[in-house]
Amino acid sequence: MYDCIVVGSGVAGVSAALTLKANGKDFLLLGSPELSGKVARAERILNYPGLSAVTGEEFRAALVRQLKDMEIPVTDERVTGVYAMNGSFSLLTESGQAFESRTVILTTGVEAVKPVPGETEFVGRGVSYCATCDGFLYKGKTIAVVCTSARFEHEAEYLYKLAGKVYFVPLYKSPADLGEKAEKIVKKPLRIEGGMRVEKLVFDDRELPVDGVFMLKESVSPAVLVGGLETEEGHVRVHRDMSTNLKGLFAAGDCTGRPYQYAKAAGEGNVAAHSVCDFLAGARKA
Amino acid sequence: MYDCIVVGSGVAGVSAALTLKANGKDFLLLGSPELSGKVARAERILNYPGLSAVTGEEFRAALVRQLKDMEIPVTDERVTGVYAMNGSFSLLTESGQAFESRTVILTTGVEAVKPVPGETEFVGRGVSYCATCDGFLYKGKTIAVVCTSARFEHEAEYLYKLAGKVYFVPLYKSPADLGEKAEKIVKKPLRIEGGMRVEKLVFDDRELPVDGVFMLKESVSPAVLVGGLETEEGHVRVHRDMSTNLKGLFAAGDCTGRPYQYAKAAGEGNVAAHSVCDFLAGARKA
Repeated sequence: MYDCIVVGSGVAGVSAALTLKANGKDFLLLGSPELSGKVARAERILNYPGLSAVTGEEFRAALVRQLKDMEIPVTDERVTGVYAMNGSFSLLTESGQAFESRTVILTTGVEAVKPVPGETEFVGRGVSYCATCDGFLYKGKTIAVVCTSARFEHEAEYLYKLAGKVYFVPLYKSPADLGEKAEKIVKKPLRIEGGMRVEKLVFDDRELPVDGVFMLKESVSPAVLVGGLETEEGHVRVHRDMSTNLKGLFAAGDCTGRPYQYAKAAGEGNVAAHSVCDFLAGARKA
Repeated sequence: MYDCIVVGSGVAGVSAALTLKANGKDFLLLGSPELSGKVARAERILNYPGLSAVTGEEFRAALVRQLKDMEIPVTDERVTGVYAMNGSFSLLTESGQAFESRTVILTTGVEAVKPVPGETEFVGRGVSYCATCDGFLYKGKTIAVVCTSARFEHEAEYLYKLAGKVYFVPLYKSPADLGEKAEKIVKKPLRIEGGMRVEKLVFDDRELPVDGVFMLKESVSPAVLVGGLETEEGHVRVHRDMSTNLKGLFAAGDCTGRPYQYAKAAGEGNVAAHSVCDFLAGARKA
């Protein structure tokens, strides 16, 4: 049982982790060892106090160094669900692991890729975000794999091995080739259609009959990730101390709303970590 | 008439200024060219994302460089009052200047020095924060000058020239000598006493009969600075977008409450500046 699990390794997540570490908490930082693709892609950041006209890649490298200096590892896991138990949380990850924690800080960012129309409606009815969780359901079947980053190609490959036929839909430059039985379609899908379950993925010039659609992307909407979490126009509803409507669950960074700025993310991660410390101290007393 | 005036040049003020500049706003940053004594005094900051184990002085120097890179001057003025006019604000400074602005971002920090008992009660009745504003009222009289930093010694000297007798009470190391008619007392005052007006400054071993007490310090409580501003336990009450109960007036950093952290200050300054931009855009439309 951890004191805290930080979900996401963007600026907010790193900020929260630094403060939890400085306060001697037992925590996990779940994310990517490269931290954040979004940060790395920023061309030049003019308004982050202390780092003059830094490039996204320089900023990302500085954060990686800082985590190393502070001896904070990044656990390379993508969270597929957060479940509130009795006074604690259970977090399931793509690799099938489960982690237990007294508190959670969500720093999942905003979806860089807008959901495809139909995506949210068909979650659990043919739309999946997790290859290793749901892949076996599509053994020998026909699926579409919409992939938003080369980072997720290994998941696409995993699905390729399982499925009978794969339509591979990469939404980034220079995608890999999966193999013979995968048809690569370099085009944005327009919508997902179906009845009780997904039936087809529609493009402007064709319709693909599929049994399922895998959406492989950096972040999933917080409401999908955490049942019962209050959101407002897709953002987690938070108070000034970054608490949410779920006791012990805090949120920080872009997932709490605009402005989508590194300084805001850093500040909110810091505040969320302090609130976690207060919360744990209160829980100990109670 | 400026688009915005940022009051205070700590981390929150600098953050707000960087974002206002990036958004092409016409603004003033009022504070000290050295930015913040409090930042410079920090020994080592472990949890500011992007700057690994930076010392306070290194951080301060980085902010100074960044303002220079972004061509943002710091106007060396201490604000003594903020007055809401009809849809704009008037700011008076110690040097007797008045500035007009559509919006204000307060980043005045927290009082590093706790108010002396009696201080707040006797404001305007013998207690003053501003040598150049009120000094002339004490020509030839006996005053105590409580000085919290060598930065304010020039104000103490100004008062020394005007007053008949000065008790100089420096609360820092290695204070200067003002001159013969100043008695230096290196001790913390216990309280200010009087009736309708200030009558004496009390120490543990003596009582000084005075006509007035000047408190020369970095920051004054926001409620004293801005009439009608809602505060809560000494902190400005703000919403998530850093707006206050006064339309067009925003606040950021330590003055809005704990945690007193650089990352939080940077984040709130950024958010406040974005809210100012939204506010100005809305005002233009209306």
